[in-house]
Amino acid sequence: MQHERFRKHGKDVIDWIADYMTNGYDGPVFPKTQPGEVLAQLPMEPPQEAEPGEQVFADFESLILPHTTHWNDPRFYAYFPANHSGPGILGDLLSAGLGVNGMSWVTSPAATELEMRMIDWLGHMLKLPWRGCIQDTASTATFCALLAAREQVADVNQSGFYQQQPMTVYASKHAHSSMQKAVWMAGFGERYLRLVPGNDDDFAMDAAVLAQMVAEDIAAGFRPTFVMSTVGTTSSTAIDPVHAVADICEANNMWHHVDAALAGTAAILPEMRWILDGTERADSFCFNPHKWMFTNFDCSVLLVKSPDALKKAMAINPEYLKAGHDAVVENFRDWGPQLGRRFRALKLWYVIRCFGVAGLQDKIRAHLNMTRWFADQVRAEPRTHLLTEPKINTVCFHLDDDAATKALMKAVNDSGEAYLSHTVLRDRYVIRVSFGQIHQSQQHVATLWGLISRLLP
Amino acid sequence: MQHERFRKHGKDVIDWIADYMTNGYDGPVFPKTQPGEVLAQLPMEPPQEAEPGEQVFADFESLILPHTTHWNDPRFYAYFPANHSGPGILGDLLSAGLGVNGMSWVTSPAATELEMRMIDWLGHMLKLPWRGCIQDTASTATFCALLAAREQVADVNQSGFYQQQPMTVYASKHAHSSMQKAVWMAGFGERYLRLVPGNDDDFAMDAAVLAQMVAEDIAAGFRPTFVMSTVGTTSSTAIDPVHAVADICEANNMWHHVDAALAGTAAILPEMRWILDGTERADSFCFNPHKWMFTNFDCSVLLVKSPDALKKAMAINPEYLKAGHDAVVENFRDWGPQLGRRFRALKLWYVIRCFGVAGLQDKIRAHLNMTRWFADQVRAEPRTHLLTEPKINTVCFHLDDDAATKALMKAVNDSGEAYLSHTVLRDRYVIRVSFGQIHQSQQHVATLWGLISRLLP
Repeated sequence: MQHERFRKHGKDVIDWIADYMTNGYDGPVFPKTQPGEVLAQLPMEPPQEAEPGEQVFADFESLILPHTTHWNDPRFYAYFPANHSGPGILGDLLSAGLGVNGMSWVTSPAATELEMRMIDWLGHMLKLPWRGCIQDTASTATFCALLAAREQVADVNQSGFYQQQPMTVYASKHAHSSMQKAVWMAGFGERYLRLVPGNDDDFAMDAAVLAQMVAEDIAAGFRPTFVMSTVGTTSSTAIDPVHAVADICEANNMWHHVDAALAGTAAILPEMRWILDGTERADSFCFNPHKWMFTNFDCSVLLVKSPDALKKAMAINPEYLKAGHDAVVENFRDWGPQLGRRFRALKLWYVIRCFGVAGLQDKIRAHLNMTRWFADQVRAEPRTHLLTEPKINTVCFHLDDDAATKALMKAVNDSGEAYLSHTVLRDRYVIRVSFGQIHQSQQHVATLWGLISRLLP
Repeated sequence: MQHERFRKHGKDVIDWIADYMTNGYDGPVFPKTQPGEVLAQLPMEPPQEAEPGEQVFADFESLILPHTTHWNDPRFYAYFPANHSGPGILGDLLSAGLGVNGMSWVTSPAATELEMRMIDWLGHMLKLPWRGCIQDTASTATFCALLAAREQVADVNQSGFYQQQPMTVYASKHAHSSMQKAVWMAGFGERYLRLVPGNDDDFAMDAAVLAQMVAEDIAAGFRPTFVMSTVGTTSSTAIDPVHAVADICEANNMWHHVDAALAGTAAILPEMRWILDGTERADSFCFNPHKWMFTNFDCSVLLVKSPDALKKAMAINPEYLKAGHDAVVENFRDWGPQLGRRFRALKLWYVIRCFGVAGLQDKIRAHLNMTRWFADQVRAEPRTHLLTEPKINTVCFHLDDDAATKALMKAVNDSGEAYLSHTVLRDRYVIRVSFGQIHQSQQHVATLWGLISRLLP
């Protein structure tokens, strides 16, 4: 593609994205694609000769879009949001245009230092002035925190696990599955992972049970090493008792990680900052601007109280990467699993400046109001029941029996007019409605409730 | 940012990128930034009120660009290339515009199926028709392969390492540092990592020593588990003897991973396909289209002979992610560490179609010719010495003594007219000149040689 063709076609792509952001997708938000349907329409072999970008784009419109789940359409209420935004897209575009690899300070000083300052800004917004860096996902942030904890207790990096006292790990039964996966990957073994029950009312971790489990493990000769508190669980946005967990971690010298992947963004509101109370006593904290802070995926932020603990677990310095200033600069390759690093701070810079903190707060507040309004409708409608009071941005509700709940969700999703997802809590099939898509307005939410009302049995 | 402002400013950003691709950066390719220099110019606190994107862009030009190492300027010869391209940028831009999370088939069927087909295309181009997926980096690909190997031998995911027979891992002394890091992260312990010496001539792994190490470890009661062959080492693009390693792996039932992060792209040339000879006998293979195949970072491709082994190590299926069709579709979250996944296949689709296989081959061939031409100059100049015959895209050379070599590299980099990096091989400080930047032409390379000639002592 010659540069002038890039210039022309690039502007067409910008126009398409502007239209998509303005109008949403002109078709179902959730496609009725059958497995293999897209594959069957894609040539088995690559083209030998160059094709024009316009042809690829035409195929994108006819073949990709109709088989895409439209995460950035306002009718998307499934899982948690994964938001783009105009500023996020432009920051990301500049990053692609530059194409720097920010693995080390020297491989792009501005990439490292802008990332440091964006962490300062986020720490200011969250009132958690720690150091940190951008990871790809909360899965990786949890994994990093677990490795830092592991290397504080035992030098597994050098010696392996074999001669170690078994290390135990704790998280809520409602914690994200990436906790379990991190335990697998880091070699702890799931038999040493304790899933602490949540209380039956709001699914928050029962700290008394945690304390008891820790005591039992010590008695059994194990070494309690790591606890993850979740602020805003995936199923129901339950909030673990961070202070009570901190008490137990401090008493037993355990690493305490707070996973607020979704909910952390809400803490930029003064009236919501309480959800992070106690986090200042933890060792590490993660939230994902790529979820609810309108910063394109991927952008997950890991803050740590002691960067040295993280770097002890992660830092490697082969000859071909050695450079001047190494003693006085941060090389973010030493803060995470991957060597290569995209210049992700650019999109955060664009987002925070183009929204302003007040603008971000306005958006989040509006989403919280939508959540409350929707919960009010569920409460007022005799056929729908709240599973628990919504804590953050997600309403969990059900009908009188699971079959009816499932049928309702299927009918909504089949309509193409909204996309919802589900979970199982208290042995019940539950519909989750998660607010926070950037283009969502109260009008969309009213439309959603109208659709649900019409489809109720 | 309102959508119409996005539309307008987005086109300005496209224009800037088109100009940057056409002209390169109008300043030094390698900045003389002092540590903290960028930080000092960035406000300590985020703005409360929204600022226009144009203001952010003005600051990008005045504050970020002068302190950026310009990886996509043709004067960049350091490390290995990390290429952007017009098609790669546009595919990535569309991915940002859509903002889908392709963690599961159902969360965007087109994202999963396009990725499957792109793997088919790459398998066709490399004559290695395996299944696979896109990972972020080769660091992650190596880590995934190591976990798959680990779980084939022992159920560490469930039981941990404690009761296991110690598992040993092997790679060339010249293998990438991410091998060591993977061994750390996965809990093996570096004391069970054997770095096999390379031969003194071209630094390829000495398979006879590998065989001996494996035999000794078996005699010592260990369980040899994993070998990584490198095709194109970081320091000198040495090529390990893949067939000889395969013999040893097959005889001892070890997982064999082939890391061709940089060099794999060269294998799309019929005349260079020999570099992968024997890989069809391995278990997994990685190469990075984000290095030399003009596909924006990040895009590392992991191919596996048995996807089931990989999924056994990685698959988790919490209730909130369960969906119809799970039994018959691929959920790529089960193929790697992270849950969330960006729609990266779009940029590969754009790149392969807009270049065409022939167009990609032409570019790679031109880079190989530049490498040979440059090596000829080094050979002809009495003051410069080739360390070894260049195998792929990188020339390693030195002067008569280390101090002079270091001084030359510093002078070149300080000039701002080229950026080189170094390594140490045979206890010698060596300059690496790595070709493959997308905008590089023979004229640039001639200019580089002219610069070096003028700066020679």
